[in-house]
Amino acid sequence: MSAKPFPDRMKAVVLDSYTGAQALRLEERPVPKPGQDQVLVKVAASPINPSDLSFIHGLYGFQKPLPVVPGMEGSGTVVAAGSGLMARYLQGKRVACVSQSRGDGVWAEYALIASNSVLPLDSSVSLEQGAMSVVNPLTAVALLTIAEQGGHKAIVNTAAAGALGQMINRLGLSQGIRVINIVRREAQVDLLKQQGATDVLNSSSSDFAQQLRDLCHQYRVRLAFDAISGPMTVQLLDAMPPHSRVTIYGGFSLEAAPVWPGQVIFEDKAVDGFWLSAWMGEHNLLQNLLIWRRAQKLLPTVLRSEIRARYPLEAAAKALADYQDTMTGGKVLLVPAAEDPPLE
Amino acid sequence: MSAKPFPDRMKAVVLDSYTGAQALRLEERPVPKPGQDQVLVKVAASPINPSDLSFIHGLYGFQKPLPVVPGMEGSGTVVAAGSGLMARYLQGKRVACVSQSRGDGVWAEYALIASNSVLPLDSSVSLEQGAMSVVNPLTAVALLTIAEQGGHKAIVNTAAAGALGQMINRLGLSQGIRVINIVRREAQVDLLKQQGATDVLNSSSSDFAQQLRDLCHQYRVRLAFDAISGPMTVQLLDAMPPHSRVTIYGGFSLEAAPVWPGQVIFEDKAVDGFWLSAWMGEHNLLQNLLIWRRAQKLLPTVLRSEIRARYPLEAAAKALADYQDTMTGGKVLLVPAAEDPPLE
Repeated sequence: MSAKPFPDRMKAVVLDSYTGAQALRLEERPVPKPGQDQVLVKVAASPINPSDLSFIHGLYGFQKPLPVVPGMEGSGTVVAAGSGLMARYLQGKRVACVSQSRGDGVWAEYALIASNSVLPLDSSVSLEQGAMSVVNPLTAVALLTIAEQGGHKAIVNTAAAGALGQMINRLGLSQGIRVINIVRREAQVDLLKQQGATDVLNSSSSDFAQQLRDLCHQYRVRLAFDAISGPMTVQLLDAMPPHSRVTIYGGFSLEAAPVWPGQVIFEDKAVDGFWLSAWMGEHNLLQNLLIWRRAQKLLPTVLRSEIRARYPLEAAAKALADYQDTMTGGKVLLVPAAEDPPLE
Repeated sequence: MSAKPFPDRMKAVVLDSYTGAQALRLEERPVPKPGQDQVLVKVAASPINPSDLSFIHGLYGFQKPLPVVPGMEGSGTVVAAGSGLMARYLQGKRVACVSQSRGDGVWAEYALIASNSVLPLDSSVSLEQGAMSVVNPLTAVALLTIAEQGGHKAIVNTAAAGALGQMINRLGLSQGIRVINIVRREAQVDLLKQQGATDVLNSSSSDFAQQLRDLCHQYRVRLAFDAISGPMTVQLLDAMPPHSRVTIYGGFSLEAAPVWPGQVIFEDKAVDGFWLSAWMGEHNLLQNLLIWRRAQKLLPTVLRSEIRARYPLEAAAKALADYQDTMTGGKVLLVPAAEDPPLE
């Protein structure tokens, strides 16, 4: 038998309690063995996403038994495969992967992933871009699909200077949907306008509420995608004309949205939510692969992510602090092999 | 020319500011003259509805220029008609009527009503029952129609001991839809059970949240009709399984509902609203007349209203205080001709 292409032990970031970055530590563990329909991925890179922040604070859609390795998405190379046709097909391939509601995530040198949660990367996609090719790009595709299916010609996009917010704006523009972007600082207004944004509002402006209301009425905007929740959701409901809906997909504010009965009763307004996992669960494997293929083609352009910093696993807590400090200046990556040759 | 069947002047309740019952006074005014497509109704009775409370506090779906006569619905006899086929057809008829978003309401001896807002009463319906035959009965019919169209086999019904709540329970039972009723006091549990209610929960019980959750999961309840809003809306969202919706149609709590992002994102829950005016506006005149005919047939049984007290117009403020004091013990009527022969 030939030598295994990977060691017996690995470094992994481990979460001990759902109390945030302070509960993270580095641990040495055995490299796990793939079972049926599983592959072992040598992790190349993993971004820190808002969903990771929610997860380590216990605010995500699921909690896992502790201790657990966090990390929702990443990229790498399949170095071992369990039984199963799909798993064996993936052997040796460069892939993107997403962690499931059970088992460890990808903030480790190696990660065990269900073969149906592994997506082969096109040769044109680098491992670093591939690491950020699922959560944000597919969310952007999903939200704009929802907007199109609802016949919306214009939408509101909060947290528009974030990586996902930028994608929503660019994808909307490319699909002929007007996007009213909301940011928090004047510098972010410039950033969005450099990317071709037609409408950018600064929520710190004194006349923000009136500006938002004017634009929403001018373009008859009846759908807002909200990553912030709390008072922002209510400002969106206030600003849009009757028969409008705010779809919440994030809770950056960590606050509830105080929805007034008069708004929903007399103005036919509504609040609902979006979760990528649930949305993909509504599609079959083939549909999701087609969506994935379309998203990959757009990765170099409208669905690209900027990278601000790369950290080794040892510095996971520092990487999280960096990310939270400035959530709009490009993605922060965890790169297990930071001492290895540069990533392709 | 024959003598007019009505005097030149009348008593009317008038609201001077949107500050509640304290801003009501009695005024003597000229009896108005019907214009095109209008009729003059000699008012027999008008109930105090929650929507009247909202209106006099300025919290309803529209505000009218002040001073204004309040009163959303009532019954009476058409004593004069303006030009227009429908108006002339209604001359002399016993009718139910609803006030519009413009002009005075029905808390007066005479009221001017658009002829398309006047509904002829079946001879089997008394003027007193007819006075309460639009707002609550049609709301109950509309809500159960929404439940049926959504394929719901079970719903939650808050403020279930109120006049409308009782109707929703009885109509649901008659349509084979299970109704989980929520009341605030133990005596109201008995009241509902006497009306055949299968499931009644007391929100004052210490284990209310768990009981509600158990029932909602047992019967897979994914739709709640909420007249209360505020914390109740959140309890409903908490209790129901994923993919549920709370439809708010009233705001008794006068509070916003603090909707948490996690609920709408990860559990696919939603909050929307219902307004009878908007719902009827989605149907054409013929459809609404058919709904109205169906509701009238049910007035003696599942859509009946109990009457607790009758007040003359002079005692409008006292009537409102009485109504607000105990909102579940039968309707409070304003009866302009309380000194006249007993109503039929």
